[in-house]
Amino acid sequence: MFLPDAVDFGQRKMEMCARYGLTGLYPLDNKIDLAADDVSLSIFKGNVGMMNEAVAVIANLTPFRGPSADAGTAFELGYMAGRGKLCLGYSNDGSIYVDRVRRAGEVRTGNAGLVDAQGLTVEDFGLSDNLMLVHTLDLYKCPLVKPRLPPLDLWYDLTAFEACVRAAAERLYRTRAKS
Amino acid sequence: MFLPDAVDFGQRKMEMCARYGLTGLYPLDNKIDLAADDVSLSIFKGNVGMMNEAVAVIANLTPFRGPSADAGTAFELGYMAGRGKLCLGYSNDGSIYVDRVRRAGEVRTGNAGLVDAQGLTVEDFGLSDNLMLVHTLDLYKCPLVKPRLPPLDLWYDLTAFEACVRAAAERLYRTRAKS
Repeated sequence: MFLPDAVDFGQRKMEMCARYGLTGLYPLDNKIDLAADDVSLSIFKGNVGMMNEAVAVIANLTPFRGPSADAGTAFELGYMAGRGKLCLGYSNDGSIYVDRVRRAGEVRTGNAGLVDAQGLTVEDFGLSDNLMLVHTLDLYKCPLVKPRLPPLDLWYDLTAFEACVRAAAERLYRTRAKS
Repeated sequence: MFLPDAVDFGQRKMEMCARYGLTGLYPLDNKIDLAADDVSLSIFKGNVGMMNEAVAVIANLTPFRGPSADAGTAFELGYMAGRGKLCLGYSNDGSIYVDRVRRAGEVRTGNAGLVDAQGLTVEDFGLSDNLMLVHTLDLYKCPLVKPRLPPLDLWYDLTAFEACVRAAAERLYRTRAKS
């Protein structure tokens, strides 16, 4: 997720998948010519191709530049859900959405429930993030994986990711055994 | 989008759709019992049902509590793209993503391009938001609709929304005429 050493880190994630018998697909696998004019379109097409090929997604929903998950990751989780793929996700921040909005600024009680400084309502369901993301994962009986304790490194800790890999492997092998 | 008067505003949006011969589906159409224990799950199921029923989405990608679009809306755009539906979107903020990240804090040039104060890379493609969102709309030959001038009201201005409704109507009538 936008790490300066994303290629190396993606390699570590794929190695972890391999230890559970899974083949990880990681966006930067795509060899993109970063000097080309249409580099963002090439990355987009590569990502869509990988999503179409994949049987499952493990989305990193750690809050990114705000109280919610990265919008690109949220899009990708939605895309995979729309295609009926197995959806798993984790966040290395175990806090509740409304508490993060509170931390970022004023939250008060308006006529329609909690509102922020702009007067926009704040989802207050005790969930970790927007209900569409959280409940999508619930559908697969593998709720959002969160750390019991805050990890020392929000971006590099792979404990929650590994729990998702294990859960994905269990589900995918069970499906294969059935078919 | 999390407006305190979302029901009334949704009504206005649906009326605008009707003027172009389209039937708008708006999440709060779903009559949800807000006192129930599983209210967030009911909203989720209602939204998914509406997305499955709809033939197109018009996503409000105006930056929300940070430099990017609302994660729930991004998820829904992804879901609709995953199902091969017509995807349109608008933002009432015409600025470029990297400029919004700059406005929110430090952005410097690292070894892997621009990075923020946490050392995470900043997408720098001259796009309005994450490339997955923006290029999804480009696929449908209706790029993200943005205001030429900042609207007086970021949340209630419907000019860009109306442009999307018109584009959706044109495309959907063309499809019907062909079939």
